[in-house]
Amino acid sequence: MKPSLVKGTRDFGPAVMQRRKHIFNTIETVFKKYGFMPLETPAMEQLETLTGKYGDEGDKLLFKILNSGDFAANANDEIWQSKASNKLTSHISEKGLRYDLTVPLARYVAMNRNEITFPFKRYQMQPVWRADRPQRGRYREFWQCDADIIGSDSLMNEADLLCIAAEVFEKLGVGISIHLNNRKILEAIASKFEIEAKFNQFVIIIDKLDKVGFETLIPEFEALGLSQSNCFELEGFLTKMPFSMNSIYLIQDKLNGIDKSEKGCLELSDIFNFIEHTGGSNFIKIDLSLARGLEYYTGTIIEIKANDIKMGSISGGGRYDNLTGVFGLPGVSGVGISFGIDRIYDVMEELNLFTNVAQTEVKAMLCHLDENGRNFNYALANELRKEGISIEVFPDIKKLPKQFEYAEKKGIPIVIITGDDEISSGKLSYKNLITKEQGKIGRNELGGFLK
Amino acid sequence: MKPSLVKGTRDFGPAVMQRRKHIFNTIETVFKKYGFMPLETPAMEQLETLTGKYGDEGDKLLFKILNSGDFAANANDEIWQSKASNKLTSHISEKGLRYDLTVPLARYVAMNRNEITFPFKRYQMQPVWRADRPQRGRYREFWQCDADIIGSDSLMNEADLLCIAAEVFEKLGVGISIHLNNRKILEAIASKFEIEAKFNQFVIIIDKLDKVGFETLIPEFEALGLSQSNCFELEGFLTKMPFSMNSIYLIQDKLNGIDKSEKGCLELSDIFNFIEHTGGSNFIKIDLSLARGLEYYTGTIIEIKANDIKMGSISGGGRYDNLTGVFGLPGVSGVGISFGIDRIYDVMEELNLFTNVAQTEVKAMLCHLDENGRNFNYALANELRKEGISIEVFPDIKKLPKQFEYAEKKGIPIVIITGDDEISSGKLSYKNLITKEQGKIGRNELGGFLK
Repeated sequence: MKPSLVKGTRDFGPAVMQRRKHIFNTIETVFKKYGFMPLETPAMEQLETLTGKYGDEGDKLLFKILNSGDFAANANDEIWQSKASNKLTSHISEKGLRYDLTVPLARYVAMNRNEITFPFKRYQMQPVWRADRPQRGRYREFWQCDADIIGSDSLMNEADLLCIAAEVFEKLGVGISIHLNNRKILEAIASKFEIEAKFNQFVIIIDKLDKVGFETLIPEFEALGLSQSNCFELEGFLTKMPFSMNSIYLIQDKLNGIDKSEKGCLELSDIFNFIEHTGGSNFIKIDLSLARGLEYYTGTIIEIKANDIKMGSISGGGRYDNLTGVFGLPGVSGVGISFGIDRIYDVMEELNLFTNVAQTEVKAMLCHLDENGRNFNYALANELRKEGISIEVFPDIKKLPKQFEYAEKKGIPIVIITGDDEISSGKLSYKNLITKEQGKIGRNELGGFLK
Repeated sequence: MKPSLVKGTRDFGPAVMQRRKHIFNTIETVFKKYGFMPLETPAMEQLETLTGKYGDEGDKLLFKILNSGDFAANANDEIWQSKASNKLTSHISEKGLRYDLTVPLARYVAMNRNEITFPFKRYQMQPVWRADRPQRGRYREFWQCDADIIGSDSLMNEADLLCIAAEVFEKLGVGISIHLNNRKILEAIASKFEIEAKFNQFVIIIDKLDKVGFETLIPEFEALGLSQSNCFELEGFLTKMPFSMNSIYLIQDKLNGIDKSEKGCLELSDIFNFIEHTGGSNFIKIDLSLARGLEYYTGTIIEIKANDIKMGSISGGGRYDNLTGVFGLPGVSGVGISFGIDRIYDVMEELNLFTNVAQTEVKAMLCHLDENGRNFNYALANELRKEGISIEVFPDIKKLPKQFEYAEKKGIPIVIITGDDEISSGKLSYKNLITKEQGKIGRNELGGFLK
C-alpha cells in the first residue's frame, strides 16, 4: 500500500520539531515566570461535554469517535432505517475529540473545584482537532497554548496576560500589535445608537471591518437602523486609538451616561494602570472594532497580530464570566489568552526568524576507520555523555566521506576521526564542518573543547 | 449537566504534571545525548494504515473516527440493513487514532525516504489510544516515549538503547533489571526440539512463564511434542543468566550446529562487547524466556522491569527487520526501545521517588495590604521577571492569611509582604513558609536573594 496522511494533518520531522520546540519552550518559560502551572486533559471528551459549546457550526466540526464493539446493535431501529446521519450520531458515538482547551478547562475546574487552589492559574499546550476545510494557516490538527486565570476578578490578570504576550513575541523576535477592547464598551456603543436588541448582528458587521473598509459596511449599519450621522460617529469609535488614559477619557466622554460604558472604561483604565507600572507597552492599541465573534467574552477582549505579514490573529483571548456555569459551577470569572502555535510557526518561517535555532544539540560525531576505532569511540562517547555532552558515534563500518555526509546533513558541527595513530598517541583529529578548521586534540581535553 | 471523563482517560493536574514532566524531560535529555532527534505524527491516521498491523485483537482495540457530514449516505445499503457493525465500520469511518508510535514511524519513513538522513535516529513522545478494558497500569489514553534507529544493522545501536535505558532509570532513581533475548536463539531452541512448525504456540507458552512456574507449563510443552528430558533441558535454557561471554558460550555450546543459533549468539556477544567498553552493566540479564509476543521482532528483544515492585514491564523493545516493508520500503532494519511513561509514573509514586520534584518553579509571592502595595509589587514583580525569576503577585485585595494560604497550597516557598513602611524604607519583609525564617531585605537585593 502507498501510505498517506489524513487530510489537514501533518508530520513534524526533526528540523521542524526543533523549531516548534523553540516556540513551545519560549511560551512555557514565560508562563512559568508568571506562576502558571501545567494541566493536561484527555484527547477524548464525552460528546455531551463538547456539543452545544461552540455553536451549531462548531458541533458540525467536532470529530466523533465511533463506539467500540457492536455499535449498530445499540442504535434505535427506526432512526437506523432512516439513515439520518445527524440523528444517528448520538446513537453510535459517545466520545469526541477536544475542539479547544477552554471547554476541557471548564470541565476540569467544575469536577475538581474542591481540590483546586483559587485563583487557579493554569497553562495547557496540547493539540485540538476540527473537521474544518484545510487551507493556509488552518489545519485539522493544530496546537493551542493557553494560559487562564480562573476565580479572580482583578484586572491585574489581564495586565499579566498582556505582559506575557509582549514578552513571548519579543523573545521570538516577532513584531506584533496587541488590539484591546471590552465587550461592555461595545454594548454601550450599541446602546447609544439604540440597537441593543440587534447587538449580535451589530457585532457580526463590525467583525468584517478588518477585511473590508468602513464605507462598504455603511449600508449594513443603516439597515440596522443607524442614521448617516450615527455612522459617521461610529467610524470614529472604530478607529484604532493609542492605549492611553487620554483615549479612555475620550471614549468615556462620548459614551457619557450610557449604561455599562463607565464599567467598561474603568476596566480599560485599570489595565492601563498596571501596564504603566511595568514601563508601558506602545504596541497595545485600543481597538473598539475588535469583536472576536464575542462567543463567551463578557469583558476584556484581546487579539494579537503579527506586523509585516498577512495572516489572521496569532493569539487572542479575553474575560468570560460564566465559563463553568454550564458544568454546574456558576459565578466563577476567568480570563485567558491562547497562542496559535501553527500560525506563529508560519509567521516566523516567512520572516526567517529561525536562524538561531540549532538543527541539533549534538556537539560532535566520532568517526572511525575500522572496528577498532569504533570500539575506542564507543568508550569515549560514553565518557563524554557522562559529562553531559551530546555526541554520536557512527554505528556502521563505512567510508569516512559517508560518515561526514551524515554529520553534515544532521547539522553536527564537528567530526572527530579515530584511526590507529590517534588511539596510540591519544591525540584525536578533528574537523569543524562549518569553519573547515582542522587540528589535533588530546583525548582528555575533548570534553572541555566540546563544551 | 454533571461532567465526567471518558473511561480509562485522565486529567493531569499541576502536581501530577510536574512529576510527569520530570520523567519526560529526563528521558528526552538522555535521548538527545545519544543523537536522537524529535518526530511527531498526527493523532489520526488513515484507518488502512493502522488495520492489520496489530493482529485481530489490536484491530478491535483501534478507536475509529466517524466520517464527517452525512456519513450514512455513503454506506452500502445492503450492509446498512444488516446492521453488521464489523462490516459497516469501513463504510462510515476512514480514520483511526494512533495505537502505538511504531507504525506511524514506519509510515513516516516510507513516505519521506528521500529526505531522511539514514541511519535515522528519532525519538517520539506522544499519547496513544487503545479501546482496552481499563485496569491497574492500563489506560485507554497513555504515553509512549520511543527511540528508534532505522537503517543500520550495527549492534552498537542495541548497546546504545541499553545504555539509554540504564541512564534514564538511574537518573529517575528506579532500580531495574534489563532482560535480553534474541529471537534467533528462541528459534534455534525450537529447532533443537524439532518443533519449528509450532514456533508460535511454543512462544505463547514461554510467555506465560513469568506468571506461573515452569512445572505448571510442562503438560503444555509435552502437548507440543517435547519429551520429559527435553523439558528438563528447556528449563535450563529458560533460567536467567548473567550477561557475560561465559553465558553466551554456554548457550552456543548447547545449541551447537543448529541453524540460527550461531547468528543469535554472535549478536548477543557483539552487544556484550560494546557494553563492556562502557564499563559494563550488571543489571542486564540474558533471559531466553523473554518472548514479548514477538510481534515483529526478528533479532534482539529487550524488556525492563522495576525491582521491588509488582508491575508489568516498564520499558521494552527490540530489532525488526522489515518494519517499512508493508508501506512499500522493504529491507530496512530498525531497532527501538519504548518507555511506558504511565507505568513508570506509577512505579515512582509507589516507591516515593518524587520527593525532589518541586511543586512549582515560583520562587516567591509578593503580598500586599492594599492597592498601593499591589501596584508597588506589580512593578517589582516585572523587574524580577526580567531577571528570569519566577514570581507571583496575589491578584486580589484580600487579607494576608488568605494570600499566605494560596502560597502555601501552591508550594511557593517565600512570601514577601509590602506595606506603606516597606515602600517608603525600600526594605521588604519576607517569610520563608518552609523554614519559618523571617527578616527584611532591600528591594535591590531581592533578585540575588531569590536566585
